[in-house]
Amino acid sequence: MASVSPLAVPLPALPPLDGVRLAAAAAGIRYQGRDDLVLVELAQGTTVAGVFTRNQCPGAPVDWDRAALGSGRARGLVVNAGNANVFTGKAGAAAAKATAQAAAELLGCRPKQVFLASTGVIGEVLPHERITAALPDLYATLHADGWAAAARGVMTTDTFPKGATRLASIDGTEVRISGFCKGSGMIAPDMATMLCFVFTDAKIPTEALQRMLRKGVDASFNCITVDSDTSTSDTVLLFATGRAKHATVPPEGGRMLRDFRAKLNEVLLDLALQVIRDGEGAGKLVRIDVTGAVSARSAHRVALAIGNSPLVKTAIAGEDANWGRIVMAVGKAGEPADRDRLSVAVGGVWMAREGGVVPGYDEAPVAAHMKGLEVAITVDLGLGSGSATAWTCDLTHGYIDINGSYRS
Amino acid sequence: MASVSPLAVPLPALPPLDGVRLAAAAAGIRYQGRDDLVLVELAQGTTVAGVFTRNQCPGAPVDWDRAALGSGRARGLVVNAGNANVFTGKAGAAAAKATAQAAAELLGCRPKQVFLASTGVIGEVLPHERITAALPDLYATLHADGWAAAARGVMTTDTFPKGATRLASIDGTEVRISGFCKGSGMIAPDMATMLCFVFTDAKIPTEALQRMLRKGVDASFNCITVDSDTSTSDTVLLFATGRAKHATVPPEGGRMLRDFRAKLNEVLLDLALQVIRDGEGAGKLVRIDVTGAVSARSAHRVALAIGNSPLVKTAIAGEDANWGRIVMAVGKAGEPADRDRLSVAVGGVWMAREGGVVPGYDEAPVAAHMKGLEVAITVDLGLGSGSATAWTCDLTHGYIDINGSYRS
Repeated sequence: MASVSPLAVPLPALPPLDGVRLAAAAAGIRYQGRDDLVLVELAQGTTVAGVFTRNQCPGAPVDWDRAALGSGRARGLVVNAGNANVFTGKAGAAAAKATAQAAAELLGCRPKQVFLASTGVIGEVLPHERITAALPDLYATLHADGWAAAARGVMTTDTFPKGATRLASIDGTEVRISGFCKGSGMIAPDMATMLCFVFTDAKIPTEALQRMLRKGVDASFNCITVDSDTSTSDTVLLFATGRAKHATVPPEGGRMLRDFRAKLNEVLLDLALQVIRDGEGAGKLVRIDVTGAVSARSAHRVALAIGNSPLVKTAIAGEDANWGRIVMAVGKAGEPADRDRLSVAVGGVWMAREGGVVPGYDEAPVAAHMKGLEVAITVDLGLGSGSATAWTCDLTHGYIDINGSYRS
Repeated sequence: MASVSPLAVPLPALPPLDGVRLAAAAAGIRYQGRDDLVLVELAQGTTVAGVFTRNQCPGAPVDWDRAALGSGRARGLVVNAGNANVFTGKAGAAAAKATAQAAAELLGCRPKQVFLASTGVIGEVLPHERITAALPDLYATLHADGWAAAARGVMTTDTFPKGATRLASIDGTEVRISGFCKGSGMIAPDMATMLCFVFTDAKIPTEALQRMLRKGVDASFNCITVDSDTSTSDTVLLFATGRAKHATVPPEGGRMLRDFRAKLNEVLLDLALQVIRDGEGAGKLVRIDVTGAVSARSAHRVALAIGNSPLVKTAIAGEDANWGRIVMAVGKAGEPADRDRLSVAVGGVWMAREGGVVPGYDEAPVAAHMKGLEVAITVDLGLGSGSATAWTCDLTHGYIDINGSYRS
């Protein structure tokens, strides 16, 4: 087990949320001596939205959830760690179905109201008998305070559990938004070996829920990258139990959800940044702001090209403010860029401007900034008003250690 | 200085080639105690073709060469190692011009007939006075046997010099094609911190030369990747001195160049694979064959997605035939792929077929193959007849060591 990331943050208190009960247990799917199976029960009437990996070879649980989203309703969630149930052919689909059926029987709902997520090794058939055998005991221990146990139960190479919670107001009524997630490698747009589950007691129509989630994911999980690899399992699910007593939200959402939207985005970004803080081998959290691009989309691509560059990321690991490599990464993004209008700052100090080094810039604050746990890179392209932010971590020996021996 | 790559191959004997004289010297541009400046004199009438980086922020020498290609004629080449003259603004352009002028004076030609290439650190102004001061002595020592010294003089993080030579026949007359190159990091399509210089005594019109070089680069340097980063300096130049006595080649080339084309492609691929063999930190040479894609272009993209995946590359470093990560990389390429028609072989053993693991496949030969210096991955997409091959190396602690402290 790797030591805890130097960038770790404590798991916040996740208080009970009306309509949600959780439990975690050790089912022995792969890991020994730790929880690896999580069951969540959702109140009758819960609406659901989901965003999934764009990988062309998704896992069986992603197939299952995409189909289950059709009804827009959810009563349960089963998550296992240690085996991703990916590239497991018909046996994988059968394992997903058997898991959902067993959970549905306990929860008293249809199998298609049970959502699934699996994370871990690819290409090995999920031993779903261990899951179905563990579910009855898990069901018996469901409780409103199971949040921390659930956040821990979904971890794989994660070195710390990840959660976030906010209060929001809908038409004057207070509602809560809480979530937990896992992920530390194979993280890239779109998404990651990244599973994220967010819950609210608000009562929100499926259509509005789905639109808010899509936008929120675009501004959070789709702006982070650890290694440019895109998992076959990425899943973000948002469940709204509808237990809060507020005025009826129209299907299109609209103004009534303004505060809710803002707080949901905060929860999603908080969780996404925790994933980066736990990036495999990460020693530094890197924020990349790109301004002056021809469009926001172009700025986003440039920011990710910088965030994905192994040469930029190793330089940061070496605490070297190597702006030459940043220029290289801007140039390789394939987006409009003019070498002679480009400016680069590290830690707020402009090191390069208009095609060359800034004569006599003060290296001392830059060197001090590079030694910190958080590094800020700003690139101004000098072309337009498009801007974007992306987050990544440095590329260290730790990444090689973790990924050169994951299965052994 | 890193130790020599375990994948290194010896520099072949590069015999004299009519119309080419070379010299190398230590100009103290950055390195101490080694050659870092190369001058090549080309006979009157030499034609030239060039292919350059697609990075949007190219170095001043690339700008210079692109302009110089206009005349299609060359009389000299000046290459320096240690400073790439990239992102150096007007001072960089002035340094390029001054270097070309000084060389032109010695060679008795126009400055625009002198080609330039610089490699090394980005963002520092090239101390061109050291180059111009060293050129007269360099000119005085030009000789037909300077090939090995030149191949060594252009190295940066390279751990061995890289050269290749072939004999070809044009209309029954024997001609020679010889080249040397440098590059070991920031290697990706399109190209690399990769400088490659190829020479022939054949007499070939510029138009035919340019077309052959473009195609040859697409099938060699554009099929290799070390780290997905694209250098600002990538340059491949092909010079034809025209000293061989063969029948006149028409401007469009055509059938008369069939053998020449084949041998040129061999030289380019040989050099490209030597770059991969010297990939920063490389311990294994990885060949990726993709078949059954909807098109050759699609196969090429899938092959490069596999070759660029940090998770695939670290697994190979760990000698783990982790075909699950290969499936992930296929899926993230964004090309047509059907999980349930996909097959993956490592070392010629099919481990996965039609959406799942091959039951009871023999792991022993796969494990033995992974321990070797050369690893072969084959992916059949089962969709069409498009195929492509790409080459990469594994991702090791050595890469982090080299790139986490390059400037210090």
